[in-house]
Amino acid sequence: MTETPELNDPESLANDLATGQRRALAQAITLVESTRDDHRQQALALLQALAGKPYRQALRIGLSGTPGVGKSTFTEAFGMMLIEHGLKVAVLAVDPSSARSGGSILGDKTRMEHLSRQKNAFIRPSPSQSALGGVARRTREAILLCEAAGYDVILIETVGVGQSETMVADMSDIFVLLLAPAGGDELQGVKRGIMEIADLILVNKADGDLKPTAMRTCADYKGALALMRKRRKDPVGFPRVRPVSAVTGDGLTEAWADISELADWRRQQGVWDDIRKKQAKYWFQQELRAGLMRYLMRDEGLAALVADLSLAVESGEISASAAAATALERFRSKG
Amino acid sequence: MTETPELNDPESLANDLATGQRRALAQAITLVESTRDDHRQQALALLQALAGKPYRQALRIGLSGTPGVGKSTFTEAFGMMLIEHGLKVAVLAVDPSSARSGGSILGDKTRMEHLSRQKNAFIRPSPSQSALGGVARRTREAILLCEAAGYDVILIETVGVGQSETMVADMSDIFVLLLAPAGGDELQGVKRGIMEIADLILVNKADGDLKPTAMRTCADYKGALALMRKRRKDPVGFPRVRPVSAVTGDGLTEAWADISELADWRRQQGVWDDIRKKQAKYWFQQELRAGLMRYLMRDEGLAALVADLSLAVESGEISASAAAATALERFRSKG
Repeated sequence: MTETPELNDPESLANDLATGQRRALAQAITLVESTRDDHRQQALALLQALAGKPYRQALRIGLSGTPGVGKSTFTEAFGMMLIEHGLKVAVLAVDPSSARSGGSILGDKTRMEHLSRQKNAFIRPSPSQSALGGVARRTREAILLCEAAGYDVILIETVGVGQSETMVADMSDIFVLLLAPAGGDELQGVKRGIMEIADLILVNKADGDLKPTAMRTCADYKGALALMRKRRKDPVGFPRVRPVSAVTGDGLTEAWADISELADWRRQQGVWDDIRKKQAKYWFQQELRAGLMRYLMRDEGLAALVADLSLAVESGEISASAAAATALERFRSKG
Repeated sequence: MTETPELNDPESLANDLATGQRRALAQAITLVESTRDDHRQQALALLQALAGKPYRQALRIGLSGTPGVGKSTFTEAFGMMLIEHGLKVAVLAVDPSSARSGGSILGDKTRMEHLSRQKNAFIRPSPSQSALGGVARRTREAILLCEAAGYDVILIETVGVGQSETMVADMSDIFVLLLAPAGGDELQGVKRGIMEIADLILVNKADGDLKPTAMRTCADYKGALALMRKRRKDPVGFPRVRPVSAVTGDGLTEAWADISELADWRRQQGVWDDIRKKQAKYWFQQELRAGLMRYLMRDEGLAALVADLSLAVESGEISASAAAATALERFRSKG
């Protein structure tokens, strides 16, 4: 981890956060990102202190875009527009590959030079560590911290490495997929399952020579979406597909209107809270299962047995059920 | 469960299976479907006895089709064609809803009257119980049993309730999606994520008046697939979309050629074994995690704590991480 946070007591840090102090927020996020046990304890205490306080819900927008679609430029332009609307905007980057690749982290921040200078904007690079589980927890907790710090909109953006898109969607109220105009051979194709979790698909670079291609791309994806069942009961026309240009700013206001419309509709229908509750429950189960497995696998004998069994199952020497039964038997006899 | 299997010793049952005795197969499947502890023990012993024996791999074809697409008619026609090719065909139905709805089970068997009369065909209805986990285990084990009994092709068909399609895909070598011709308003849309796990999409009822609609539907889905990244490295043209008619038999030979082509290609590329290994490993992990949770939740105190924590997390009183930490603490202090 980078800087070590001062050992503020959770209560005072929680209070500083509640008053929207950016330094407190940065410090708190560093705390939840720390892997040190004592920091972890403080982080949990801080989250607990915050859970007690009443706060306004932020709009959590997941934003996915592969390198080259102009995600940073879009985030900068979209974020600036929101700030002009008088909103406080936090940007959290999620890039599980950052540990390996060095990450687009500093890149992001420098590429968002206008946004990063705004007092109502807070940009947080992705924690540079590659375990998706760890990234997930830290990001979820960073979201809670930004919310407690009074930010109105939290943009959780990911480059979509591995499962990071579904992960981000599972912690967002609205999930936006940013695409580049493309057709025929250049067409990379949207990653598995992503099209169906998107509430809004934005085709960026709808300007200049690329505009016609962008319009065609929009039509193509509209057609494809029509063949898929909706993820949940949503107003007519969603998931919506719209051309935008982060450079000219075209379509940004409309995209924000789409997001607001969907968010309002879900709040009115009571879907909003259901989604957040489901997400919270899901993350609790994930944390619990992962934690249990970690704890059990600390028993080297059991860990070795499970590893051996896994190989035996892969090679077909033993059935999955029989292998699981064997491991469970060993576990029972110990516990 | 239905009939109680005779208490044959696993070895002899395994041998009867290996000689392809249908009665032994039916009995063995009933055994793995039984929830009685002594039966479970025998089932595991049987699977273990079989794991030792060398056997030819069957082609496991997952087949998903919602009610109304003519799945039974297709299975009957497709199965008969395979039998005319001199192949032994097993049909396993997976319908997690069968417990509730009564299921299309008997229906299936009567609707496949020709196939069910073939000595080289074996049709097994879905176990009537609704827990998907249970259905998954029983189906996976039934697949192993059919394979051991020397069946060349195992059709695992599901009506696609809840997650049953991905479940079936995770135990199949090739996944086939059967669609009905539709356009505009009738269009139901393919369920989330299903289009992207399909290796082959067959649009049924491509005969008579519906043929033009079927051709249009094919074109639509081809277009949509072009916008999605492939699940894995596959030969050009896959996932393939093809019109078929279970009534006239048109396209069935071609569909079988597609499946064989893809299967051969994957075997040559070594992808085939990778997929089976990944699947086996996945199922082992699923069984292990589920088994562990079941075992732990037998501790009423812990189960109650987890339930309370889950509600607290949903209502936002406590963060997912903090709740998981609390539950784990309680677990450690006991274990």
